[in-house]
Amino acid sequence: MPLTGNRKWLNEVIFGTDTPAGKAFDVALIWTILASVGLVLLVSVESMAGRYGELFFILEWIFTALFTVEYLLRIYCAVDRRSYVFSFYGIVDLLAILPSYLALLYTGASYLLVIRLLRVLRIFRVLKLVRYLRDANLLVRSLWQARRKILVFYAGMLVLCIIFGAMMFVVEGPRHGFTSIPKSIYWAIVTITTVGYGDIVPQTPLGQAIAALTTLIGYSIIAVPTGLVTAELASEMRHERTLHRCDNCSRADHDPDAEYCKHCGYKLAELHDLHGERAAE
Amino acid sequence: MPLTGNRKWLNEVIFGTDTPAGKAFDVALIWTILASVGLVLLVSVESMAGRYGELFFILEWIFTALFTVEYLLRIYCAVDRRSYVFSFYGIVDLLAILPSYLALLYTGASYLLVIRLLRVLRIFRVLKLVRYLRDANLLVRSLWQARRKILVFYAGMLVLCIIFGAMMFVVEGPRHGFTSIPKSIYWAIVTITTVGYGDIVPQTPLGQAIAALTTLIGYSIIAVPTGLVTAELASEMRHERTLHRCDNCSRADHDPDAEYCKHCGYKLAELHDLHGERAAE
Amino acid sequence: MPLTGNRKWLNEVIFGTDTPAGKAFDVALIWTILASVGLVLLVSVESMAGRYGELFFILEWIFTALFTVEYLLRIYCAVDRRSYVFSFYGIVDLLAILPSYLALLYTGASYLLVIRLLRVLRIFRVLKLVRYLRDANLLVRSLWQARRKILVFYAGMLVLCIIFGAMMFVVEGPRHGFTSIPKSIYWAIVTITTVGYGDIVPQTPLGQAIAALTTLIGYSIIAVPTGLVTAELASEMRHERTLHRCDNCSRADHDPDAEYCKHCGYKLAELHDLHGERAAE
Amino acid sequence: MPLTGNRKWLNEVIFGTDTPAGKAFDVALIWTILASVGLVLLVSVESMAGRYGELFFILEWIFTALFTVEYLLRIYCAVDRRSYVFSFYGIVDLLAILPSYLALLYTGASYLLVIRLLRVLRIFRVLKLVRYLRDANLLVRSLWQARRKILVFYAGMLVLCIIFGAMMFVVEGPRHGFTSIPKSIYWAIVTITTVGYGDIVPQTPLGQAIAALTTLIGYSIIAVPTGLVTAELASEMRHERTLHRCDNCSRADHDPDAEYCKHCGYKLAELHDLHGERAAE
Repeated sequence: MPLTGNRKWLNEVIFGTDTPAGKAFDVALIWTILASVGLVLLVSVESMAGRYGELFFILEWIFTALFTVEYLLRIYCAVDRRSYVFSFYGIVDLLAILPSYLALLYTGASYLLVIRLLRVLRIFRVLKLVRYLRDANLLVRSLWQARRKILVFYAGMLVLCIIFGAMMFVVEGPRHGFTSIPKSIYWAIVTITTVGYGDIVPQTPLGQAIAALTTLIGYSIIAVPTGLVTAELASEMRHERTLHRCDNCSRADHDPDAEYCKHCGYKLAELHDLHGERAAE
Repeated sequence: MPLTGNRKWLNEVIFGTDTPAGKAFDVALIWTILASVGLVLLVSVESMAGRYGELFFILEWIFTALFTVEYLLRIYCAVDRRSYVFSFYGIVDLLAILPSYLALLYTGASYLLVIRLLRVLRIFRVLKLVRYLRDANLLVRSLWQARRKILVFYAGMLVLCIIFGAMMFVVEGPRHGFTSIPKSIYWAIVTITTVGYGDIVPQTPLGQAIAALTTLIGYSIIAVPTGLVTAELASEMRHERTLHRCDNCSRADHDPDAEYCKHCGYKLAELHDLHGERAAE
Repeated sequence: MPLTGNRKWLNEVIFGTDTPAGKAFDVALIWTILASVGLVLLVSVESMAGRYGELFFILEWIFTALFTVEYLLRIYCAVDRRSYVFSFYGIVDLLAILPSYLALLYTGASYLLVIRLLRVLRIFRVLKLVRYLRDANLLVRSLWQARRKILVFYAGMLVLCIIFGAMMFVVEGPRHGFTSIPKSIYWAIVTITTVGYGDIVPQTPLGQAIAALTTLIGYSIIAVPTGLVTAELASEMRHERTLHRCDNCSRADHDPDAEYCKHCGYKLAELHDLHGERAAE
Repeated sequence: MPLTGNRKWLNEVIFGTDTPAGKAFDVALIWTILASVGLVLLVSVESMAGRYGELFFILEWIFTALFTVEYLLRIYCAVDRRSYVFSFYGIVDLLAILPSYLALLYTGASYLLVIRLLRVLRIFRVLKLVRYLRDANLLVRSLWQARRKILVFYAGMLVLCIIFGAMMFVVEGPRHGFTSIPKSIYWAIVTITTVGYGDIVPQTPLGQAIAALTTLIGYSIIAVPTGLVTAELASEMRHERTLHRCDNCSRADHDPDAEYCKHCGYKLAELHDLHGERAAE
């Protein structure tokens, strides 16, 4: 059932991105989200919360009011209300306002503070506005193509970490900070990924030799996910380029951000649409 | 000599992956392995071992009993018993049960705890079940192709670490933590791989200048193994793609996970089999 | 209006790089800049400043005098004086001398010391001298091509850091160093980029598990910018190679640093010029 | 002047790698070098030097005697004695024995200990023995091809480190460990390369924000050298493959380590020789 009148107009403004009003709404929304996220960050700083606590409290309720109105309007003008409410973004929209109301009942729970931070996820819904979505799609598609190889890689790496962690537990033992095998595995993961906090550190010569071996292996296999993603990205980018074909002279060697054919000046079809077609195939 | 009757059925269930019973066995086995590995991790945590020691003891014996029965059945139904027992997985299967029995004789050795952890290697045998094996093969083959270049790279890097470590031993000396050349080499490896624990750190200006140089070199040559593996992976992935040829229309531009020819709809041969053929060439 | 006489000759020496005098001036300038930057570094070391303070003071004024003369000469011989003064390098040239004069009025401000360091940017203007510019162009162009993908990647990574930081704030809390959400986000960024200072470190088992997950994710997505830049660089390098075409036999498979056609010995056009043409298209 | 008799035979054994005696000599030499390097490492460990000092002293003189004899024989049987003595390896060979004799005059200098470690460089001369040299050549050639781009990259990174280091010096100041600009630059290098020792760490919110920015930039530009080397390596490996052409059927799709043409079984020319030809072009 197509929407009419008020609801149709509201739908175009709130959910749409093509009309000037829709764009303005999206831009206003993105700034409101960023401001409310910044507010949550400041609230968590004790010295700030002490000095400006009251101001923060008022601002928080203003943001909550704004998001509540927006949430109700979204329900009002959605094409299919039920599917909106239970969609991923529907739930994120609800989570953006719920914690403030819950805080009236339970006081001081820092968990609620963190759930408020999930508002940051709402930014992704507004990103539809910009051309960046296509590039995000490319990244996600490449990672998705490589998903099984990445999983196999992680499985192998975890087994390595378990074995190295267990060896360090035996070699260094609890008196040097390796108090249990899970903690030693935590050390192995921190080492093999080259993070190296330095909170747990081998102190015996043998332990240091094993640690050196672990870092060398970590240094070497960092190449594997990089190689995987690079190969997939290169293949996806080639694919995208061949999709970008001029309808007039049918040459296909255009840059991904080209808007006109560089051989005959004909307007190129939007890559965005082409992805849509591909998805619909 | 082909197996018959009971042994044949058992062999299909335990070693095979094609029948529903074989799949169910593999899934049950993978969960049992993970549970027993998790148990070993918990046993090593002192606070847990103190509270639930008795429960852990009972569970350990249940797992040992299960693996013992499985091991005996595997010997019983193997096509070639001797070659199973002395195969890599045959020994891993034995190591999964031996430590518990040894613990009856010698008590409290944490070494036995760690050997038990080798059970985690048994997961790889069950991975035959899934399609992930092909991707693991691709990774291993790429690393194998690049093995000599990686070795040369490691040799050069070790020489670098020895020279930088020795320089730091002279410049910083024992009073700043660089107590011996091997320890300084340990520092150089930890630095050049960009792990950087911070347990040994240069304190003189000259030492810090050398450390900065070492990190810059480490940052630069991290590119070499990455480049090697990426180039090999890209070449292997191209190779795999060309192997994936339709027997009907003989076009070969299918995605690695395609099961039907996208041009004529003909069922594509399994890539798995193709690798087998290649290995047999 | 073309320059004549004195001004023309000065312009060729100071701004130009083709005449021997122009090259000599550039080489002298680059060494003066490096020496003056080295001086600022030494001035900031307290023990050095105490001992050689007077010498440093005299040297600083010599450099300031030299740069002042150079600045005035540049204004004198510039083709378009106004556009030089307000150009990026005009402002950098002014910032190279201003702090020393300001230090006569305000004393001891370390801010002025740092602004003096901006002299290091002047090196880039002299780099026109060498052939390295083309390679710098290639790097910058590749990064520019990948700019939107890199931005999308950073946006995703920041959201990840906010969520992980917030989780750690809840799990570890102020008593383990995670005193506020912004500080926890700082920890998440330091961890996900595999820097790992170790100044803030998880101490509960759950916190360590989240930290391990964060490092693994960081280790994995480091592949994304690498893959992006590699793919762009490879494409730019291919592009550059095809631009490098012999005007005589029109083959285009020359190395980027070739100066003569390897097939017919004909002098190849400068790649530098070709880029100019491309930019002018 | 070609060598004859004794000298010719010695030359083949000591400098050559083709005769069985030459190979045996090289293998013996590589083990002697490794043993003598291991000895130097042990000597530097104080507890070991205390216990086994006398044994180490005797072993050191045995190695010195062996290397002295080898050095004299090399001079004796070299085709061109002068050019051997002043060649890179001639000097390394001399440095391998000189420190022990100098130690008779000056006692206890740890500098001599480190110069002895340069023996490790002698390993590279023996590496001619193995096929690994070709792969080393490929790596070195790729890095050499990318040398100018890598230099430009380092110049840009150093300027970034100077600017970030200076900012941190102003923001954090000496009371938080940033005692001078050179030390702050050391911090910036350690951070931007993702090493992150944690010996100097920002403590103000603004400093931590700058540190987060620095790590993000370091994380991003790590992609550049990787991309450069990967692109060069891929191009070199393609080049090598096309060089590997069968003289009989002239197909060129052989693996780099193939020795016979996979299409007609004809013996392929050594890639090693081909590189020689290329170098001689």
